[in-house]
Amino acid sequence: MQDTADQNQETSLAMKFSISKDKLVEGVNHVMKAVSSRTTIPILTGIKINAGLDGITLTGSDSDVSIKAYIPLEEDDEEYVSIEKPGSIVLQARVFSDIVKKLPSDTVNIEADSRLITRITSGSSEFNLNGLDPEEYPRLPQIEEENIITIKTDLLKHLIRQTVFAVSTSETRPVLTGVNWNIQNGKLDCVATDSHRLASRSVAVESAENATYRNIVIPGKSLNELSKILDDNSGEAVSIVITESQILFKAKNLQFFSRLLDGNYPDTDRLIPNESKTDIVISTKGFLQAIDRASLLAKEERNNVVKFRTLSGEVEISSQSPELGRVFENVQAEEIKGEELKISFSAKYMMDALSKVDSQDIRISFTGAMRPFLIRPVGDDGILMLILPVRTY
Amino acid sequence: MQDTADQNQETSLAMKFSISKDKLVEGVNHVMKAVSSRTTIPILTGIKINAGLDGITLTGSDSDVSIKAYIPLEEDDEEYVSIEKPGSIVLQARVFSDIVKKLPSDTVNIEADSRLITRITSGSSEFNLNGLDPEEYPRLPQIEEENIITIKTDLLKHLIRQTVFAVSTSETRPVLTGVNWNIQNGKLDCVATDSHRLASRSVAVESAENATYRNIVIPGKSLNELSKILDDNSGEAVSIVITESQILFKAKNLQFFSRLLDGNYPDTDRLIPNESKTDIVISTKGFLQAIDRASLLAKEERNNVVKFRTLSGEVEISSQSPELGRVFENVQAEEIKGEELKISFSAKYMMDALSKVDSQDIRISFTGAMRPFLIRPVGDDGILMLILPVRTY
Repeated sequence: MQDTADQNQETSLAMKFSISKDKLVEGVNHVMKAVSSRTTIPILTGIKINAGLDGITLTGSDSDVSIKAYIPLEEDDEEYVSIEKPGSIVLQARVFSDIVKKLPSDTVNIEADSRLITRITSGSSEFNLNGLDPEEYPRLPQIEEENIITIKTDLLKHLIRQTVFAVSTSETRPVLTGVNWNIQNGKLDCVATDSHRLASRSVAVESAENATYRNIVIPGKSLNELSKILDDNSGEAVSIVITESQILFKAKNLQFFSRLLDGNYPDTDRLIPNESKTDIVISTKGFLQAIDRASLLAKEERNNVVKFRTLSGEVEISSQSPELGRVFENVQAEEIKGEELKISFSAKYMMDALSKVDSQDIRISFTGAMRPFLIRPVGDDGILMLILPVRTY
Repeated sequence: MQDTADQNQETSLAMKFSISKDKLVEGVNHVMKAVSSRTTIPILTGIKINAGLDGITLTGSDSDVSIKAYIPLEEDDEEYVSIEKPGSIVLQARVFSDIVKKLPSDTVNIEADSRLITRITSGSSEFNLNGLDPEEYPRLPQIEEENIITIKTDLLKHLIRQTVFAVSTSETRPVLTGVNWNIQNGKLDCVATDSHRLASRSVAVESAENATYRNIVIPGKSLNELSKILDDNSGEAVSIVITESQILFKAKNLQFFSRLLDGNYPDTDRLIPNESKTDIVISTKGFLQAIDRASLLAKEERNNVVKFRTLSGEVEISSQSPELGRVFENVQAEEIKGEELKISFSAKYMMDALSKVDSQDIRISFTGAMRPFLIRPVGDDGILMLILPVRTY
């Protein structure tokens, strides 16, 4: 009896629209970057679909990062979306994402009824998915759009790549798993360190005259995800809005929210040596490849340490493994100044740093075998990297 | 004192040659396919390098599969190898393979001394590796080259692809993890089955008039590796030599040895129904894609089963998951003959079979909902696939 009663209960249309399959796939791919299968909040396993009068908004979130993708009714004279009834639904992210990619036609029709049953049709294919209640989906933070900072997309991607690799992967000091941003006088300084190495970059940004932000720490994971969804070839700018606990990046048809990390980021300036005893200038690529080869015999030992020493006009890189054997390689230096030096360091840290540098040559400044040393691309003052040596000599 | 005595002991040159880096990398990549890191025989973690008067031979083996790659002194008027002293050495496969890929120059010099220390130089890079004794490396079986069977490379790759997917992955009946080959009257019949589905293909081969081989069972894993190292665009033929316990495939500059599986392969002919109650002809691609979509809601349940039924002029594919929802799709058939039918089967098995078919249409012949059914590409009599249904209707 209950069943019959249920079936007779009237179901009304809660949402209905049709959309370009390609645009839907693109939007779903973007918001999927924020969806985690390991979430403890069931509704966050879903993607929220909102059909508004001006287009479709998709939202994915793991509560640390939230991504909104917007598909307008039309753009560049192409029609992408046609709304028959505005409304919302939440659909299981994994299966919805798989389905839209495999639909047979260029157009997808989606309609949800008042019982949350969502009918997706495309060509002769018809899916009826059990939806989740959009009212249960958490609201994204309302961020006041004052004090917008603006930066070109490709510059933002570069500075993420050149700093985020140095964040800590250990939760011992959670604040070190993020990149520290400081903004003052139209300059953005980014620093990351895991306390064994450090990477920093400064760039000019557009901002209101007195816009000053200190101790903004953005999770490294968030920045990696942001970088992935930003269009590589976009000449456009990204707008950034910062609040006490959140940062919002706005690109074309995309909004990326990340929580900020609590805690005070350590003062890294005091780590940077201000004198140097041995200075070398060397080809970035030549040095990187020699380190890469030497590391092949250092991998088996857990620390992956190679030895480095200055010779006349060149440097020697070597490593050895009792089991495998030894490797030596001399690399011509452009310039060697100061004291002779023998030092050992992690090949991985050095390769991480060198692979982020676009300049042809790098300058490495040492202050003895036991002190941190600095790596700077020749001709680019905005980038500075630091590595702590390992005691072996 | 022992140390000093050792150091004064004379070491003599055991092997010396130089080789094109590209050719060495190619050869190493081929023989690495046979090297397993999980071997219990320490010498088999290495690659054997033999410098003969006519070129370099590399050997890799996991004792089930052995691969020999040969690099001649010269080919097509290009000089690839220069031998200064013939000899042999065995080097750790993983590290040697990593090293050769990353060497800086187009030429690689390799020399081993009587203590097995092997010096690899290229450009300014110098590796001294601890070698292993080549005398300890197992000898490959000597195979008498009578009764050679010949088959075109691309045909061999096709028939591997069209049968090997159906081998059993369970060791319950080891003989089913292989593909059964039978050769008679210039015809090669290949069959694989895991007892839930079957794939078979017959092709013409060149062989001596009376060459007859029965119950040859080649491990599926071996055939997969063989297929990977055979050149895709080679118009050349592969020579095949079969002995009681081994099979040898010879391609240009490559020899691939595999052991054969013991045991009697079951008679699969009796599985093939010789009558049919419902026959359909349908677009391979259209049917495959519809099954793929329907399987999206069947994945969560472990068996991945979809339902199929004949309608007037079309077939309906459907599946449902209590949690996710339902999917229906009708696909136009080219032809439907015989009784109406409702049947359920594994979407995975069907997709595995259909994705190996190059014909535009397939014919499926059913003999009722509980009996195995046959899939045959229209216009290609050499291929036959069989799937056992699942009881759900």
